[in-house]
Amino acid sequence: MATLSSTHCRSYSPLPSSSYAPSSSSYLCFKLGHRQRVSVSSGSKRFLEAKVSIQSHTNSVGRTQDGAVTTTVAPIENDIPFKKLKDGLLSVSSSDECKDAMTFEINENEPTVSITVVGASGDLAKKKIFPALFALYYEDCLPQQFTIYGYARSKMSDADLRHMVSKTLTCRIDKRENCTEKMEQFLKRCFYHSGQYDSPENFAELDKKLKEHEGGRVSNRLFYLSIPPNIFIDSVRCASLSASSGNGWTRVIVEKPFGRDSESSAALTKALKQYLEEDQIFRIDHYLGKELVENLSVLRFSNLIFEPLWSRQYIRNVQLIFSEDFGTEGRGGYFDNYGIIRDIMQNHLLQILALFAMETPVSLDAEDIRNEKVKVLRSMRPLQLENMVVGQYKSHTKGGVTYPAYTDDKTVPDDSLTPTFAAAALFIDNARWDGVPFLMKAGKALHNKRAEIRVQFRHVPGNLYNRNFGTDLDCATNELVIRVQPDEAIYLKINNKVPGLGMRLDRSNLNLHYAARYSKEIPCAYERLLLDAVEGERRLFIRSDELDAAWALFTPLLKELEEKKIIPEYYPYGSRGPVGAHYLAAKYNVRWGDGVDQ
Amino acid sequence: MATLSSTHCRSYSPLPSSSYAPSSSSYLCFKLGHRQRVSVSSGSKRFLEAKVSIQSHTNSVGRTQDGAVTTTVAPIENDIPFKKLKDGLLSVSSSDECKDAMTFEINENEPTVSITVVGASGDLAKKKIFPALFALYYEDCLPQQFTIYGYARSKMSDADLRHMVSKTLTCRIDKRENCTEKMEQFLKRCFYHSGQYDSPENFAELDKKLKEHEGGRVSNRLFYLSIPPNIFIDSVRCASLSASSGNGWTRVIVEKPFGRDSESSAALTKALKQYLEEDQIFRIDHYLGKELVENLSVLRFSNLIFEPLWSRQYIRNVQLIFSEDFGTEGRGGYFDNYGIIRDIMQNHLLQILALFAMETPVSLDAEDIRNEKVKVLRSMRPLQLENMVVGQYKSHTKGGVTYPAYTDDKTVPDDSLTPTFAAAALFIDNARWDGVPFLMKAGKALHNKRAEIRVQFRHVPGNLYNRNFGTDLDCATNELVIRVQPDEAIYLKINNKVPGLGMRLDRSNLNLHYAARYSKEIPCAYERLLLDAVEGERRLFIRSDELDAAWALFTPLLKELEEKKIIPEYYPYGSRGPVGAHYLAAKYNVRWGDGVDQ
Repeated sequence: MATLSSTHCRSYSPLPSSSYAPSSSSYLCFKLGHRQRVSVSSGSKRFLEAKVSIQSHTNSVGRTQDGAVTTTVAPIENDIPFKKLKDGLLSVSSSDECKDAMTFEINENEPTVSITVVGASGDLAKKKIFPALFALYYEDCLPQQFTIYGYARSKMSDADLRHMVSKTLTCRIDKRENCTEKMEQFLKRCFYHSGQYDSPENFAELDKKLKEHEGGRVSNRLFYLSIPPNIFIDSVRCASLSASSGNGWTRVIVEKPFGRDSESSAALTKALKQYLEEDQIFRIDHYLGKELVENLSVLRFSNLIFEPLWSRQYIRNVQLIFSEDFGTEGRGGYFDNYGIIRDIMQNHLLQILALFAMETPVSLDAEDIRNEKVKVLRSMRPLQLENMVVGQYKSHTKGGVTYPAYTDDKTVPDDSLTPTFAAAALFIDNARWDGVPFLMKAGKALHNKRAEIRVQFRHVPGNLYNRNFGTDLDCATNELVIRVQPDEAIYLKINNKVPGLGMRLDRSNLNLHYAARYSKEIPCAYERLLLDAVEGERRLFIRSDELDAAWALFTPLLKELEEKKIIPEYYPYGSRGPVGAHYLAAKYNVRWGDGVDQ
Repeated sequence: MATLSSTHCRSYSPLPSSSYAPSSSSYLCFKLGHRQRVSVSSGSKRFLEAKVSIQSHTNSVGRTQDGAVTTTVAPIENDIPFKKLKDGLLSVSSSDECKDAMTFEINENEPTVSITVVGASGDLAKKKIFPALFALYYEDCLPQQFTIYGYARSKMSDADLRHMVSKTLTCRIDKRENCTEKMEQFLKRCFYHSGQYDSPENFAELDKKLKEHEGGRVSNRLFYLSIPPNIFIDSVRCASLSASSGNGWTRVIVEKPFGRDSESSAALTKALKQYLEEDQIFRIDHYLGKELVENLSVLRFSNLIFEPLWSRQYIRNVQLIFSEDFGTEGRGGYFDNYGIIRDIMQNHLLQILALFAMETPVSLDAEDIRNEKVKVLRSMRPLQLENMVVGQYKSHTKGGVTYPAYTDDKTVPDDSLTPTFAAAALFIDNARWDGVPFLMKAGKALHNKRAEIRVQFRHVPGNLYNRNFGTDLDCATNELVIRVQPDEAIYLKINNKVPGLGMRLDRSNLNLHYAARYSKEIPCAYERLLLDAVEGERRLFIRSDELDAAWALFTPLLKELEEKKIIPEYYPYGSRGPVGAHYLAAKYNVRWGDGVDQ
């Protein structure tokens, strides 16, 4: 077994026999001297062809451009880690960091990164974004020169922000050393600017403050829009016009919803592109940042044993299951306008499906992977109403406690038909997947909290052991389960002889339980995605054509549901959801796998 | 997860969702009323066509015949376990037990089984055979009417035998209830008869005693020859002529060595067949009784995921590894005449190889499986000297302790060249395995004790992650390991992303560790094989044509080694064996897998 010595983000460490060099598709960071870090990116052809190209900020058309400052890397000899790096190789994410690498000196002209969290007082910012930024800082994954700005309408001082942020800044899971000290250092880098989301003046004030921090160095700026969708465009306009970087890159992270159908999504994209180039827009789907979703491609493409299995010839069906064990709990206002299909299926589950089902990409570069994902989406049939079950949770009393119905939520209209549960059968009409049902299921207020991928394999042809399995042969097929959350695990259900003198078979798991295997805690998806955005790695972000293709699959059905006012199937809060999901599965000879092992 | 409720041999129990009905290829036993047991065998066509055919003992040609007393089974309705049984189905191993099943009454005319351990005072008998018989008794797996006889030259009383036996009778692993009581009951069924191995008169005396116990009922007799090979034939002759069953079956279990080359093996077979039919001879290879070897076919044939993988297209090499961490320890007399190749490779490892590599048999019946195994053996190239490395352990001092050389053993000639270690590369020249090296390694006085099967898969073609694996791509291939002993386990090495922000891969195990999964202790191989012999199940015993084919592969090489007086490569006691094994592996682009995970 490899012992995982590194606690670092994308660090190089000497490798034990069963662990390998870090991927060339991501960044390598390691410490030099005291605090200087070298970030080296690699793998992408774009980077391999890197050349010095400092682009100026062209404000004339109201746009910034994503001009990453790059430079050619000279070969480095006679240093063990660098020698390793050289092989792939590789380029450097900024010229100054690059110089660091060359000269092994501290360079005060290292480029700066300013991360502005727009909507800093919101829940997502407090619960996810600031803690993720801190974790990256703690792990030495942020660039040496960075500043974090909170931007929101509330009047707050820097101290107020720091106080607010500090309450949610915990060191992930384990009590790490120097946590308090690191927190203090981190908070010193956090500032606040109060402003309206649609005010170019307010953003210009922010720009001024950012410039002070940047001190004339190459400045890269990342804006995280943690705000409601109706103010996306205004904020992007203001940020772009008034607060873009003058000599580095400017990137914007946007969170779903990306519209609520094909038209509104296209309108949003069009509006964003008035101010940003496509490669400045980082559409986040935080499911793509989850450890086991990241691992999906590794599993598939680096293990020969899965190669022959990954097609209609061996796979009977694929299930993508998401469940939450709580309802909207008084915050249904946003949700009611979207519903579970838009909230979970059209993005998170569909993204996982595309990653799962795509053909082998030419390389692990973002564009190659996203090209393959788009092909999957474009090979799929738009959803049909008859392949969909929608549900809504109703009140339920258990053990003296009454759990509310969805429509008991005061922020939800009493007559809302918005689905809080949906199950769907999808099909990919290509050579690999023709006829294989991809079943999705997502719901709120269910009996458990879970996200997983289940791959059910076909029956063994001419199975010598058929009569050992009783009447239900479906129970005897192999199943690969990738549990994304909670309690990350991969397991492969195999038929095995129960030890003993008889010949009794059971289905046991070949199991990889992350908590047992890996002592290191698993980073939050936001950490990975924020780091990727800082580093310009787009693999895990949604490209606009992907988004269009995803909406094209769901839009006709969503409209039909709304136009026909389809009544959802009601299910009790805390239950397993509407039984309709079973009938839908049965229609395609599928049995949901999550009923078996809880 | 299935909870394994049954503690019985081959019992039927209500099945939880993930465990299945017992195999129809073995026996089902369950209790009726107080002590009556119904044993129902099934699966074999022979049994399915069972009819009443009580064969008389034909002593005229000095032979007994294996006439199992059978009867047609009438359908049984309206009983849950029986309804299950009916489906397959199924027949009954003896007419009287069958009547039990029909009438649910105690039948005093139930056939008897007498098990005679010839060589009762020997080590194997004390350490393995009597304890295995007791375990079977404890688990209610022996027929209701059974008697055990010890036969040896020493003068002993029944009480002496019981005393001797009682010292090694422990309940397996866990402290079971009523163990002492059960032991006492068991010992009451044990008797002793003193006699010469070549004396028809002494066997006739035994016969008389057995008849007393049998009390005129249908009598089945099993002789376990736990004696040196030079007295096999005499004992078989005497048992056959003077102590065969008159109205039931007579079977003889023989242990290796079955000769020491093709000629002597053929002579032994010919001699045995003067007195016994082939189907009365149960040639035991106790490795075939081991739980994970039994499971090999289940794994292969009841899991679709392995189906496409099991050939030269995906498998790069197969390794069969056996090691002991002790030497001959003063008991090298027998061993020196045989050596490790005859002692381990030609039987245990070759049998596992044949099971592993065989084509899908028509059914799980003994003859079908053995037919396929013979085909594998006959498709193999006889071993070549250049594909073989032989070694012998030498003295080694470690931590102040000096471990002896093989030739320090007083029972071993000082100039012995007998190999205590051997490694070999074997090839199966058929469509499935052409070009795939099957590597075997077996040795005494090595650094650990282990028996395992390792299947190394090929490299991923066009692997996107190749550069994550550094220079040694062999370390990145999948491997399936079936650890037969100790600490039974199955694991599949897969490449996995190390959790964290980078893209570092390692090889983790999808693991099924028996001790963690199955609370029930694993029966000793002898239990399974003894029960099979009682039940007439021949699947795990070696047929004479298999034996011939096995010898044909090894005999030319063994002769060459001896004629050329090949000097073994000496290795220190407690080491990993001769380095020559690595060079042999390297010649076929193989790396032994047991060096990595200890």
